[in-house]
Amino acid sequence: MSVHFQQEMNQLKEKILRMGARVEEAIRDSVEALKTRDAEKAKQVIASDKQIDALEIEIDEACHQLLALYQPVASDMRFITSTLKMTSDLERMGDLAVNISERVLSLIQEPPLKPLIDIPRLAEIAQEMVRRSLDALVHLDAAGAKQVCEQDDVADQLHEQIVRELISYMLEDKNNIRRALDLISVSRQLERIADHATNVAEDVIYLVQGKDIRHHHEES
Amino acid sequence: MSVHFQQEMNQLKEKILRMGARVEEAIRDSVEALKTRDAEKAKQVIASDKQIDALEIEIDEACHQLLALYQPVASDMRFITSTLKMTSDLERMGDLAVNISERVLSLIQEPPLKPLIDIPRLAEIAQEMVRRSLDALVHLDAAGAKQVCEQDDVADQLHEQIVRELISYMLEDKNNIRRALDLISVSRQLERIADHATNVAEDVIYLVQGKDIRHHHEES
Repeated sequence: MSVHFQQEMNQLKEKILRMGARVEEAIRDSVEALKTRDAEKAKQVIASDKQIDALEIEIDEACHQLLALYQPVASDMRFITSTLKMTSDLERMGDLAVNISERVLSLIQEPPLKPLIDIPRLAEIAQEMVRRSLDALVHLDAAGAKQVCEQDDVADQLHEQIVRELISYMLEDKNNIRRALDLISVSRQLERIADHATNVAEDVIYLVQGKDIRHHHEES
Repeated sequence: MSVHFQQEMNQLKEKILRMGARVEEAIRDSVEALKTRDAEKAKQVIASDKQIDALEIEIDEACHQLLALYQPVASDMRFITSTLKMTSDLERMGDLAVNISERVLSLIQEPPLKPLIDIPRLAEIAQEMVRRSLDALVHLDAAGAKQVCEQDDVADQLHEQIVRELISYMLEDKNNIRRALDLISVSRQLERIADHATNVAEDVIYLVQGKDIRHHHEES
């Protein structure tokens, strides 16, 4: 393949990392808004989702250009088709950060239900999974991607624990019900972000190892 | 493009419709299991998700083969890359039907909370959206795809209404809380299935009109 092609592939990788960084930022800011009860920050996350959406379109267009102009084969072609799937995952992670921010705007209308410890922890895990899955993509690092898949079990368990605790608050006092439901929703969005990062990681393993491990992880 | 290429493209379309029919079946059976409190049927949905997963891999492979062998350009290339994105959506709809079935297994441990009317209605809307979005793909029917996007608003409103009603059950009696949470979860899975069908429909409009309407629908 030509020097031009390699240059454009490198640009594509930079763009994916840029999109990933934007998504991480949205997750971090949405949970920061929750912790500090900051409506302005929550609204900023909602407003800046357009930039993530625009990056999806930009990257998809770049992929189509690369396929049309260079007709790459083998691993280059699969890198591009994997990228097309991953931009959908990243774009939806952005939507999930928006959902969290919307919950924040509802939650800060009332006094805090409880001090938040596990939800920020889950948010950190989710952000780390996003970052590591994209690092694994750019460096074609199957071992790193596998670690992301394993981390998803930790995220699932933490989410389950958060839900159990919040249900106990609901059972204790019906005045807690609405706020607990909002917090369960925040936790669920984070768990779904972790799932999307796992999808990206599975695509990386598929890409590197040339075989399809998707759906095997779920079964184990 | 060669006759072979056209034959293989037609086979690809058939496979997508087959995968879509399987997903519709999984949604229908999971809600049927809920209505008739049928643990066996719920377990069948969970077990048969493997077939949907296998279809994703099979179709993705077919897409890679077509790209590599024929190096299609313009609308044929975009049909194939859109298909790669759509198989992810369909596969996740299958996962959501599994989630519903898992809730069913939990719900039938206790007496029914209330007669189910709106959830089966939401399920019908979601199934119809899946079917119509794939019909729109195969017939490159942008108008049909646009109708699916509009139907998503109906699905969202119905989901909101279901959640509001179930919260009122929770506030009424704390013994209702767990079952109401399970039913909210079922409704949410259906709403997410409708979202995935909308993603497919937006991809179809993009494909047919050659411009990106993704993310415009959300804003309006």
